[in-house]
Amino acid sequence: MFGCLVAGRLVQAAPQQVAEDKFVFDIPDYENINHIVVFMLGTIPFPEGMGGSVYFCYPDPSGMAVWQLLGFVTNEKPSAIFKISGLKSGKGSQHPFGAMNLPQTPTVAQIGISVELLENLAQQTPVASAAVSSVDSFTEFTQKMLDNFYNFASSFAVTQAQMTPNPSEAFIPANVVLKW
Amino acid sequence: MFGCLVAGRLVQAAPQQVAEDKFVFDIPDYENINHIVVFMLGTIPFPEGMGGSVYFCYPDPSGMAVWQLLGFVTNEKPSAIFKISGLKSGKGSQHPFGAMNLPQTPTVAQIGISVELLENLAQQTPVASAAVSSVDSFTEFTQKMLDNFYNFASSFAVTQAQMTPNPSEAFIPANVVLKW
Repeated sequence: MFGCLVAGRLVQAAPQQVAEDKFVFDIPDYENINHIVVFMLGTIPFPEGMGGSVYFCYPDPSGMAVWQLLGFVTNEKPSAIFKISGLKSGKGSQHPFGAMNLPQTPTVAQIGISVELLENLAQQTPVASAAVSSVDSFTEFTQKMLDNFYNFASSFAVTQAQMTPNPSEAFIPANVVLKW
Repeated sequence: MFGCLVAGRLVQAAPQQVAEDKFVFDIPDYENINHIVVFMLGTIPFPEGMGGSVYFCYPDPSGMAVWQLLGFVTNEKPSAIFKISGLKSGKGSQHPFGAMNLPQTPTVAQIGISVELLENLAQQTPVASAAVSSVDSFTEFTQKMLDNFYNFASSFAVTQAQMTPNPSEAFIPANVVLKW
């Protein structure tokens, strides 16, 4: 029903089914991973009114499983790319794999998919840093960053009348910052 | 041999084979696409010493096919994520699909995979903006952008002695830009 692909590696299409509604892929050497793609194979759709929540699970330094909600796949949106790099320092989320006791190996993480009612999925909030869609608003992001910068720099702006004499300090005309 | 996945959509695993060494996936509604994943199914490896160059092909306003080299898949790196949004204004690259005369439909793009000698692939340069790995060096990227900005802004820097009197123009001390 599901496939999983670590960018750069071979696709996996045979998750371990750990419960009637729960599927797990092992992700070896997870510390060298940037992106993971989770997708439905297209063979079996979700039952009407249901979808899948996608979790990333990795062992914390003491070997305990930390679960983080990455996002969702549904019949309407049957695939998603998640950014994994940068998740490792985050806190765990609530998750439905509690009783599974999946064996934890230091370098092996898991992708867990839990089939649930769509209305339940709608109440769950994925880890923000996992959304690759944020990448798509790259221009927007950099624009916001530059706006922040202009606001920051402007707070230091002076006119010549306000300057204390100091012939060696260099000044940048504020409109240069704006134009850039 | 190959699969193709548009983020958010169903996976495709049956490309059209347009020549012995060339495979094409149709990508409908390509203007609303951000990322495309291309991967080997894992059933048949490339012949020894060979790999695949991956092209994105879309129709320009006059309906002519524009091909852009996104990157590569090989037996050692059998999958890759490419960023498609932002490619549409770019120039076409040299490509090996010249004689194919693939039908161009206004909203349908193609992913083309050409099986070639690895030593030929090594001489090809993909479109820089297609690399999702650049996303991973996000901090590096913004740092570079800010360095560029500082260099740009500094070229306008003046000391008080060089200023022409204009009491209304605002100036930002250059060290504020550096500190940020």
